[in-house]
Amino acid sequence: MITARASYARIKTALTAIDKHDQLELLLIVAASAVLDRYGSAIEVIEKDGFKINARVFNVIEGGNLLGQAKTTGLGIIELSNVISGLAPDVVVTIADRYETMATAISAAYLNIPLVHIQGGEVSGNIDEKVRHAITKLADLHLVSTREAQERVIRMGEVPERVIVTGCPSIDLAKEVATSGQLDFDPYQKYGGVGASPEIKNGYLIVMQHPVTTEYQAARKQIEETLHAVYQSQKTTLWFWPNVDAGSDGTSNGIRAFREKHSINSMHFFKNMDPLDFLKTLKNCACLIGNSSVGLREAAYLGVPSINIGSRQHRRSRATNVIDVDYDRMAIKRALKKQLDHGAYPKSTLYGAGDAGAKIADLIASTEIQSSKFLTY
Amino acid sequence: MITARASYARIKTALTAIDKHDQLELLLIVAASAVLDRYGSAIEVIEKDGFKINARVFNVIEGGNLLGQAKTTGLGIIELSNVISGLAPDVVVTIADRYETMATAISAAYLNIPLVHIQGGEVSGNIDEKVRHAITKLADLHLVSTREAQERVIRMGEVPERVIVTGCPSIDLAKEVATSGQLDFDPYQKYGGVGASPEIKNGYLIVMQHPVTTEYQAARKQIEETLHAVYQSQKTTLWFWPNVDAGSDGTSNGIRAFREKHSINSMHFFKNMDPLDFLKTLKNCACLIGNSSVGLREAAYLGVPSINIGSRQHRRSRATNVIDVDYDRMAIKRALKKQLDHGAYPKSTLYGAGDAGAKIADLIASTEIQSSKFLTY
Amino acid sequence: MITARASYARIKTALTAIDKHDQLELLLIVAASAVLDRYGSAIEVIEKDGFKINARVFNVIEGGNLLGQAKTTGLGIIELSNVISGLAPDVVVTIADRYETMATAISAAYLNIPLVHIQGGEVSGNIDEKVRHAITKLADLHLVSTREAQERVIRMGEVPERVIVTGCPSIDLAKEVATSGQLDFDPYQKYGGVGASPEIKNGYLIVMQHPVTTEYQAARKQIEETLHAVYQSQKTTLWFWPNVDAGSDGTSNGIRAFREKHSINSMHFFKNMDPLDFLKTLKNCACLIGNSSVGLREAAYLGVPSINIGSRQHRRSRATNVIDVDYDRMAIKRALKKQLDHGAYPKSTLYGAGDAGAKIADLIASTEIQSSKFLTY
Amino acid sequence: MITARASYARIKTALTAIDKHDQLELLLIVAASAVLDRYGSAIEVIEKDGFKINARVFNVIEGGNLLGQAKTTGLGIIELSNVISGLAPDVVVTIADRYETMATAISAAYLNIPLVHIQGGEVSGNIDEKVRHAITKLADLHLVSTREAQERVIRMGEVPERVIVTGCPSIDLAKEVATSGQLDFDPYQKYGGVGASPEIKNGYLIVMQHPVTTEYQAARKQIEETLHAVYQSQKTTLWFWPNVDAGSDGTSNGIRAFREKHSINSMHFFKNMDPLDFLKTLKNCACLIGNSSVGLREAAYLGVPSINIGSRQHRRSRATNVIDVDYDRMAIKRALKKQLDHGAYPKSTLYGAGDAGAKIADLIASTEIQSSKFLTY
Repeated sequence: MITARASYARIKTALTAIDKHDQLELLLIVAASAVLDRYGSAIEVIEKDGFKINARVFNVIEGGNLLGQAKTTGLGIIELSNVISGLAPDVVVTIADRYETMATAISAAYLNIPLVHIQGGEVSGNIDEKVRHAITKLADLHLVSTREAQERVIRMGEVPERVIVTGCPSIDLAKEVATSGQLDFDPYQKYGGVGASPEIKNGYLIVMQHPVTTEYQAARKQIEETLHAVYQSQKTTLWFWPNVDAGSDGTSNGIRAFREKHSINSMHFFKNMDPLDFLKTLKNCACLIGNSSVGLREAAYLGVPSINIGSRQHRRSRATNVIDVDYDRMAIKRALKKQLDHGAYPKSTLYGAGDAGAKIADLIASTEIQSSKFLTY
Repeated sequence: MITARASYARIKTALTAIDKHDQLELLLIVAASAVLDRYGSAIEVIEKDGFKINARVFNVIEGGNLLGQAKTTGLGIIELSNVISGLAPDVVVTIADRYETMATAISAAYLNIPLVHIQGGEVSGNIDEKVRHAITKLADLHLVSTREAQERVIRMGEVPERVIVTGCPSIDLAKEVATSGQLDFDPYQKYGGVGASPEIKNGYLIVMQHPVTTEYQAARKQIEETLHAVYQSQKTTLWFWPNVDAGSDGTSNGIRAFREKHSINSMHFFKNMDPLDFLKTLKNCACLIGNSSVGLREAAYLGVPSINIGSRQHRRSRATNVIDVDYDRMAIKRALKKQLDHGAYPKSTLYGAGDAGAKIADLIASTEIQSSKFLTY
Repeated sequence: MITARASYARIKTALTAIDKHDQLELLLIVAASAVLDRYGSAIEVIEKDGFKINARVFNVIEGGNLLGQAKTTGLGIIELSNVISGLAPDVVVTIADRYETMATAISAAYLNIPLVHIQGGEVSGNIDEKVRHAITKLADLHLVSTREAQERVIRMGEVPERVIVTGCPSIDLAKEVATSGQLDFDPYQKYGGVGASPEIKNGYLIVMQHPVTTEYQAARKQIEETLHAVYQSQKTTLWFWPNVDAGSDGTSNGIRAFREKHSINSMHFFKNMDPLDFLKTLKNCACLIGNSSVGLREAAYLGVPSINIGSRQHRRSRATNVIDVDYDRMAIKRALKKQLDHGAYPKSTLYGAGDAGAKIADLIASTEIQSSKFLTY
Repeated sequence: MITARASYARIKTALTAIDKHDQLELLLIVAASAVLDRYGSAIEVIEKDGFKINARVFNVIEGGNLLGQAKTTGLGIIELSNVISGLAPDVVVTIADRYETMATAISAAYLNIPLVHIQGGEVSGNIDEKVRHAITKLADLHLVSTREAQERVIRMGEVPERVIVTGCPSIDLAKEVATSGQLDFDPYQKYGGVGASPEIKNGYLIVMQHPVTTEYQAARKQIEETLHAVYQSQKTTLWFWPNVDAGSDGTSNGIRAFREKHSINSMHFFKNMDPLDFLKTLKNCACLIGNSSVGLREAAYLGVPSINIGSRQHRRSRATNVIDVDYDRMAIKRALKKQLDHGAYPKSTLYGAGDAGAKIADLIASTEIQSSKFLTY
């Protein structure tokens, strides 16, 4: 059940491991923003990777705001419960905490189909916090990324034998890239996008900044701080458009307006990349800037310096490669200088050792999962 | 937010207290089965009690099965998020754990409106278990019925100051009835219904048995055990139709077929009663039979003997008035004999002392509630 | 696309002819009330007849009123457009004029898939009138039952070559029954149902009375007139429950209440019958009473006397076998006496000669249909 | 019931006349793309004009394709039937033929509320053709723009007294502008937008080209022909973004890609304008290019030369100011030269004399409209 392009990257090695597993058959549902071209459709990437998509679900109701997210989730339940009921899987797997994953979780739980939740038990700083833990209470098997997450899920009353640390599957791909990962393609040529095509041989920055749902009206102001800081650095910058969320128009419009106003020679804007290509690009970058969890997970494993802006990753476990700053162009500039001076960090296995996909497939195959459960207290 | 007639009875004194509170304004949304005549519409009762209904939401999608429940919840989110967005309340209050209350909880959480959850932290034995605790993770203030429930909610990681024991508001009404409650009306005449009109002066039984969602195909078999046991007792019986749930057709059809086959002189079938009238009827009955939580809550306070059938109230706190039995006509008959021999029990305040409504209104008015929160660990 | 049990009977021979046709592949979608057990599910009958059902669509939103019909149609579009988009048929076929058939027509038209409409161009007296002609304007090929209907569709601006008289496929089945059709089964034993089991050897009546949508609050009053007239005749009566419509609860409740109040020995109530069995039952009945179009179509072909009550069949073509009356127990009684005195009528081919199914399949296979069209003026 | 910004402009004077009418009360519902900022929200404009919006309906389901349009219509029915049922108007008014207006028409018809249809009876060349005439069959009073349209509606079987020529209300505004309409504001300054700010004193072109729904994959190719033709002319061009439709992404992306590739000094891109400002801009332009009906209606009244591209306005009545061409840059260039050589045309009242709004309000107030009707044949 893939609902956003970022989710696909995180789960890819698990999909491969499930697909190849003797005792498992993979049924793939792609929904929500992952099917929409406007946000960088994951469809093409998924099919190029050789997966068969069993159902595509169009459930995004426009509005660019909170009401749209709620209604998208409601329509998602109507559509996904139809699809799941038709496919009749033995187990439904969902990942992480995006608002629309709630639709997957409710559909499975209400249809009495066991639900596996990947990446539960983590903490952050907005609506995701509610969604993630509510999904934990709807799920029957919890495959978590870190020991901290495991402890939290168990404390929430889940049966300890059903809460297992696998590491995060996103690290599996990072492992592939970690040793051999040269930037063996021209990003401008391969992925198009818009903006200038500045030189990348002498190092470059990556920016990934998503709107924060509970503060969506401030999205434009927030993105402008980053835009100014990065623009003034004059460093070559590869900027990835935000995914669909309340406020995405605030963020997107902020970027568009900035581009209209300033003549920017140092930045290029991408919609999407094949996950492996993205990780190669990440591995070779001088610093990652924004609020994506990539800065805490993959960047930590790859030793890439990371600047984490604002509250979106609040309280998530982080390795030494991360510097946290507020939405403040001066703070971002200072942190950027520090990270560029420091250079690469040593590898961290905080979010996994690179074998999560295989572990997840094995655990799904070997665990007897039922769709009902009880609090342990 | 009322989604079933049973929920209204449980929350009524809280509604009254909120309505009269200086600092609070009551906005009442009635949805799901509570608006449908087929299941005993709560609309008439609510309006007769003097409440203004601000919105009626028709979101029940037929099917009599699990898919219908999932889709009803999805449509509920679409409709309720519209309504809540339009009314723009400061706080949304939801109660208990019926499947469609999830629609209320998600709508409020996604719209960033603080959510108050009444009757969280309890335990039982089916999908409700998942729903109830998932709502806890979406809610911002927890007003629970018992100390046990309070402890569970806090252990799930909720901030202790936001988890408060108020008792269950259903006990408030029971308190009114406890002293003065004579059966001062003729139930047949006042509430119609179908079946015989057997004498009630010499004592009578009440039956309330709902289908159990995760076993819906067995619903007909289950109801037949109760039908036989009660029929053979030849006691005057006031039977209340089940509310809408997956399997309601199994249960309803079981009752209809039994009536066609047997010529029953001892039973009368009701769709609904005014809550106060129901409690008077309950207080004066010889024994309550079925799987409604009424047997554990109001019956305990009123000292009414109760036979609890099957797994629906599994692990819920219970006072001495309850005998648990399986779906087994012989076991039901034995328990009935025991309870009739025993007679009334002493009052239990396990589920509250009768002041929950006032406490709930005061706490909503006096607590500074925000729509975001963090795990305590 | 079957949305009600009555629609299935009418289209069955066309389905068979399509299924067997060399150049055609049948994809069957069953939706709306046809999938619901409460109204006599068509699913079992369809599968017993050997058809494979490609999709089942649950889209009935409860309410028993006009709002419910509108919302059911809206949800129907969401669900059917998904299903049709997935099945990707070359042509979509819809039949008649029930409110939910609009969902089929809009889904096909908006997806640019050619739409075949069966039974367009007829006239009656309620919302169906609007629905039927609106579907004509969305359809690309019109296979109509009568010359009158053909003329009307052409006058509405449809291209004459795309408007062809096939007769009504419901007459095909009637033709099979017309010669050999003995009542070779015991209806009580084979179809269950409720009520008494009066003797049928000496002749019997059939009642089929649906609520009339634009007058739904009067539904109960209307059904009572028929109930009294039929009850007083003391004739053996086989009564078929109404299908789902606004007011079905009024009609159903009227019947239930009447049964509670009177001790009726002469009536039996059925939910549904296999179409062929129904036609045998019809052929051998003394008189058909109600407002079903069966009284005008199949009854005319079979020469069965028919009493048509109220406005539901207003202005539809009728043969000599029909007496029209108002909702008036005295009028119904007088008409019943007249029809019983008269006995069987000669066969009428007003609605077809019994070869509509084959004609429909051939025309779908041989016509080049496109999904766009122009007014002829 | 406003579902797109273009619809608002067309109906504005009727809204004003209804609002001021002694016997009428205006209830305004804004839905579909008219509430979305991405397509140029009509909300701000409507409120600035002093209208109170009674309900805002978010029902656009993303996809940029035919399935999305179908589902948007389905969700529209669910939402609008709720809203209309709540507001309980005496009459619902809908306009023209956009795909989502079907949701308005079905909601009103199914709720038995009389439906007034403005601009029925016209002909064009795509799905709109089906939608428009289907709405005619659902509507109870037809207020049409031209004598030709009147004749068609009557021939479709509508009662002649219910089909009245009012002219098109869009001409009312054009009348205001026709005499006094100087371009008394700076479009760049007042309406922002993106692109260059070329000189407009020496004449300018306007482009409004919408994707054509039945050919959406070709949308990008089609827009490129226009882009090239206009770009090569080097004339100052004010370009208006297309509204939401299947293929809007093809069209929008085509424009974006063209802008990235070419350094364009002669074009400016707008999302929206106040209708009066737009008409002033139109009146003073040298030539209108694209496929909007504006080229046939307002431009005819104002005598503005118009180049109509492709099939979207096929068979619609047109005055002498229109030159029709195919999607072909050479043909567009030739037509542009011809129109620039010709200059302004004389005023045409083909689509009305400028008093439609007042006529519409008077007719709604004075006509006894019922929600049921019969074919005249």
